[in-house]
Amino acid sequence: MQLGIIGLGRMGGNMARRLIKAGHEVVAFDRHADAVQGLVADGGVGSASLEEMVAKLEKPRAVWMMVPAAVVDRTIESFVHHLEKDDILIDGGNSYYIDDIRRAKDLTAKGIHYVDVGTSGGVWGLERGYCQMIGGETGVVQHLDPIFAALAPSIDEAPRTPGREPGKGTAEHGYLHCGPNGAGHFVKMIHNGIEYGIMAAYAEGFNIMKHANVGKQGHEASAEQTPLRDPEHYQYDFDLGEVAELWRRGSVVASWLLDLTANAFLEDPGLERFAGRVSDSGEGRWTIQAAVDEAVPAHVLTAALFERFSSRGEADFADKLLSAMRFQFGGHEELPAKK
Amino acid sequence: MQLGIIGLGRMGGNMARRLIKAGHEVVAFDRHADAVQGLVADGGVGSASLEEMVAKLEKPRAVWMMVPAAVVDRTIESFVHHLEKDDILIDGGNSYYIDDIRRAKDLTAKGIHYVDVGTSGGVWGLERGYCQMIGGETGVVQHLDPIFAALAPSIDEAPRTPGREPGKGTAEHGYLHCGPNGAGHFVKMIHNGIEYGIMAAYAEGFNIMKHANVGKQGHEASAEQTPLRDPEHYQYDFDLGEVAELWRRGSVVASWLLDLTANAFLEDPGLERFAGRVSDSGEGRWTIQAAVDEAVPAHVLTAALFERFSSRGEADFADKLLSAMRFQFGGHEELPAKK
Amino acid sequence: MQLGIIGLGRMGGNMARRLIKAGHEVVAFDRHADAVQGLVADGGVGSASLEEMVAKLEKPRAVWMMVPAAVVDRTIESFVHHLEKDDILIDGGNSYYIDDIRRAKDLTAKGIHYVDVGTSGGVWGLERGYCQMIGGETGVVQHLDPIFAALAPSIDEAPRTPGREPGKGTAEHGYLHCGPNGAGHFVKMIHNGIEYGIMAAYAEGFNIMKHANVGKQGHEASAEQTPLRDPEHYQYDFDLGEVAELWRRGSVVASWLLDLTANAFLEDPGLERFAGRVSDSGEGRWTIQAAVDEAVPAHVLTAALFERFSSRGEADFADKLLSAMRFQFGGHEELPAKK
Amino acid sequence: MQLGIIGLGRMGGNMARRLIKAGHEVVAFDRHADAVQGLVADGGVGSASLEEMVAKLEKPRAVWMMVPAAVVDRTIESFVHHLEKDDILIDGGNSYYIDDIRRAKDLTAKGIHYVDVGTSGGVWGLERGYCQMIGGETGVVQHLDPIFAALAPSIDEAPRTPGREPGKGTAEHGYLHCGPNGAGHFVKMIHNGIEYGIMAAYAEGFNIMKHANVGKQGHEASAEQTPLRDPEHYQYDFDLGEVAELWRRGSVVASWLLDLTANAFLEDPGLERFAGRVSDSGEGRWTIQAAVDEAVPAHVLTAALFERFSSRGEADFADKLLSAMRFQFGGHEELPAKK
Repeated sequence: MQLGIIGLGRMGGNMARRLIKAGHEVVAFDRHADAVQGLVADGGVGSASLEEMVAKLEKPRAVWMMVPAAVVDRTIESFVHHLEKDDILIDGGNSYYIDDIRRAKDLTAKGIHYVDVGTSGGVWGLERGYCQMIGGETGVVQHLDPIFAALAPSIDEAPRTPGREPGKGTAEHGYLHCGPNGAGHFVKMIHNGIEYGIMAAYAEGFNIMKHANVGKQGHEASAEQTPLRDPEHYQYDFDLGEVAELWRRGSVVASWLLDLTANAFLEDPGLERFAGRVSDSGEGRWTIQAAVDEAVPAHVLTAALFERFSSRGEADFADKLLSAMRFQFGGHEELPAKK
Repeated sequence: MQLGIIGLGRMGGNMARRLIKAGHEVVAFDRHADAVQGLVADGGVGSASLEEMVAKLEKPRAVWMMVPAAVVDRTIESFVHHLEKDDILIDGGNSYYIDDIRRAKDLTAKGIHYVDVGTSGGVWGLERGYCQMIGGETGVVQHLDPIFAALAPSIDEAPRTPGREPGKGTAEHGYLHCGPNGAGHFVKMIHNGIEYGIMAAYAEGFNIMKHANVGKQGHEASAEQTPLRDPEHYQYDFDLGEVAELWRRGSVVASWLLDLTANAFLEDPGLERFAGRVSDSGEGRWTIQAAVDEAVPAHVLTAALFERFSSRGEADFADKLLSAMRFQFGGHEELPAKK
Repeated sequence: MQLGIIGLGRMGGNMARRLIKAGHEVVAFDRHADAVQGLVADGGVGSASLEEMVAKLEKPRAVWMMVPAAVVDRTIESFVHHLEKDDILIDGGNSYYIDDIRRAKDLTAKGIHYVDVGTSGGVWGLERGYCQMIGGETGVVQHLDPIFAALAPSIDEAPRTPGREPGKGTAEHGYLHCGPNGAGHFVKMIHNGIEYGIMAAYAEGFNIMKHANVGKQGHEASAEQTPLRDPEHYQYDFDLGEVAELWRRGSVVASWLLDLTANAFLEDPGLERFAGRVSDSGEGRWTIQAAVDEAVPAHVLTAALFERFSSRGEADFADKLLSAMRFQFGGHEELPAKK
Repeated sequence: MQLGIIGLGRMGGNMARRLIKAGHEVVAFDRHADAVQGLVADGGVGSASLEEMVAKLEKPRAVWMMVPAAVVDRTIESFVHHLEKDDILIDGGNSYYIDDIRRAKDLTAKGIHYVDVGTSGGVWGLERGYCQMIGGETGVVQHLDPIFAALAPSIDEAPRTPGREPGKGTAEHGYLHCGPNGAGHFVKMIHNGIEYGIMAAYAEGFNIMKHANVGKQGHEASAEQTPLRDPEHYQYDFDLGEVAELWRRGSVVASWLLDLTANAFLEDPGLERFAGRVSDSGEGRWTIQAAVDEAVPAHVLTAALFERFSSRGEADFADKLLSAMRFQFGGHEELPAKK
């Protein structure tokens, strides 16, 4: 079928190509003209403006936006007047599901259908397919099924769950209609919240292995610092890359993120390319907000998010206050930084 | 080659069978005679006592213990006098690596070699193979290579890490000599610590989705309870089993533990078979101890462990004290339990 | 000076009485007529309706609302049409500061001034005074100074901070103009967030002392449960009430909450009056939201909040999922509950 | 009565002086001769060696060690042979209670009594008195009562707990016999664990207030960074020192640590004297170990400890791994550091 795509960045460009390969017609727009040219070279239809893109689509139109969450609203605003009743607008980016609820309400008033799709797959999606979490009206989602199916991974990406009834829904094909508007991005939000937690679990574990040789360093006795009780218990120099590789097969912690960890260590064993300032892109924060609103504990997911904040120096003032209190009650001076 | 195995429980029995299938000779002992009978029926050599098992092994002997961590020392004590110089004793259970260091020292004094093997794979290992993390002397570990190789998963269990030099080490076959004694169980300890963290990440995430319909419940205004600001944001009834299935393909959080989660929801969508008292079996605790000794933060891994403690009611007294303080300063009474 | 007060509950009633004692005229309304009668008996002026209360106040009027956060908006709505330009409306309850910002904007359009006051002191305030955190326009806050001063604790409640310039501001009198609208409740929100953290610190610490006799209980060796390595290290039966009393003098952890803890243990050493379902009343949640919005880590404050959620059973489904996963990969059954 | 004191550092020197003021005879030794001279000038009896100190004491002797935890064992070893049956050795430092259990066992074999005293009060103790948590044999502890009473704070340091039976025990005088050997340092360990938690609660809370003006900073829209949804909610510039002062009277979070926080802000409002590398001195770590051994959750106390580790850069490698994973799955580059 025919699909308009707005945004040909890292995600959008690859998705367009995957659709073209599957035989769909993609009419694309990006504010960078060369991105559009590139797609045209790969078999897409280019547009010089949003208006042109809309004009090239048959009614009822389906337009997929793949732009940063922060610019979705202004993107909609800039071309919604070109759309007509029964057209479908899809937000495949990382929007906050609460914005979906609002947008769906606004667009419904205009007769336009809104679909929110949480899309996972990163730069690997072109090859591996995109896991899609979908929110919207049932009929509309069914209408778009050929698109979702083409973007989705192959069912062969993972063995069938034993006992699963054949033909039961689309989930095992890697896409799912999760519920009404917002449901797609809600599930994607939780997906990313979990992602942060899993990443932190690996990061902390590898960090403990990294420091398993602390017993080899001398420590002076002082009231400011606890000596290691049993230095002979911490004499290990682990090859972290080999451990990551090891766990990929047969272990309980095998996962795609572990595969990537093995890649990372193979490319740069000391991870020296990185300073350790870890970004977060919204979903982790919204996950915590949902947990708090629902009064559901989420110790791990929250700690994972907060560790990212700390990595960017956001705990510095709190730490200074701790040192200041220690100085106040015990005259304790800070120790010099480790070299 | 020939291997003695002590302990034919869930893990040991399957490992013995996997070795027999691979053409190795297994001489087994278990305190339950019928477990031994069962293995004999599958091609193993049985023994009625540890002494008999030792007698049936050619020198230098190799004996693999697969017994609960808490009984390893008394097992060694009960038959070590039958062993001789150059024999090899392997602990494949979930021992604390600090015990390995001590045991290796004690056994070395007797001329006996000790090897610690952290073994992952659970009840699936017979079919899927066992990921093995090995600590001990290099020559001894090399001598046992055929055993490790037979127990290990197939390299085909996961695609090769791109760029990995062919023939580089055994890690991609699912077993690795991690370092001197204790190194195997140290790495296994961290493996399980990470496992707890990953499991908690999924559990918290699914729990937030489970409660995504709280907006449907009414709440009274009271000074004791915050009303939900926007009930319309929490109106979703997610099919958690379908979401687990969905994420297995193409998502960032795909993993073996997620595969199992999909299994679990398929078998029992409401998880009603379980009360929610989550056991922990030692490694998670030791991981925290290592983090604390090394002065390395492990927020996520620790939170995951503590959530298990809480699930077993171990926070109850702390909670009572919180209610007592609230009563003291504000006269706040506890609200009745939710039905 | 003259002040209208709406809401004569636990907080409002005592505040009214403290003002009357200080020589102010209080015109009060409460939807329970007997609460109004009670205050009249103590020297207040009663009103049978909000309208009557407004009528009894001289212009420009000052009205202090002391009602649950959830009903502030509808309270304002129900009588704001009786107010006039230059009147002052004070919200002394536990409103979300974001609501203050909105209300101030709305009321400013009507020429009415809005002041938000975070009020701490609980049921002890009548005797001990109320710590007040104030947000609003400078002139308006100064106009209300006699009211704040009368409600505030005595400066003698705590020794002067050494080196503090005499006469520097009102903070050492227990009230402070913190900034523009919302600032008062923002600071109160953080106050309560910290309160949750401090309470949790005590609760966890006392819980560890409570369990310091676990070495006296026997444990069986099993693969499901780690035995305590050194039972002789956990043989203590502490008298928790005496420890709380002890720390009140000369220790680093002396605090008002510790005083209350000592009270609680004296009244009910086993805390048997409580089930351990700990409520939370909004500010702790909003504190986390602020931390997340600001990208500032708040591990402790969040953990304190989540422990309250857990105490109310909100982790149950997550725990079931953990047990389900353990069953899937290892065939582990849950252990029976401890008696 | 007469008491030998070893160690005249920040703590020991002040304790000796407080005892002398109370009329006790202090025979002191310190490896720095001028510390001894200083005490002699203040009325103490000096010794040039441990042997000399022992010789100057009447039998049965009582010797109080006030040295870093790491050198207690070697201190005992260096002079225990000068002690005799029925002499009493007191460790008033920050020993691990598990060492107390061992030492008591060893010394009992020699007929020497051991008493462990957790001592809180910091540099303020000379003036404020020392809160003492005591472990040891009942008779021995009673024998030392005059010493404990002299070191303890005045009962007037805090109002009596309402309803407390007059004359009930010593706790309200600021010292308590907590149980058998190790009990004193166990309670002190928990005291410090709680101290870390309370300090972190304040530090996090003030940090959130410090960043309450983030809405004033501009943010670009990008896929790497979530924009602040409502910048107008974060426009506050709080005077943190005034807030600390404010909360000292009438608030729920009033405490001695808050008094010190007010001091710290008064002396150095930006806390610029500190880099934010927060030391920890052992008890916080042991508290976590006790929690883990007892299987009791301690989210807050552990988070407080881990935040200190992070402040010293111990999370750096974990953070690099997180960035490496993000780069692997999404091609995400780290953002430059904030200026």
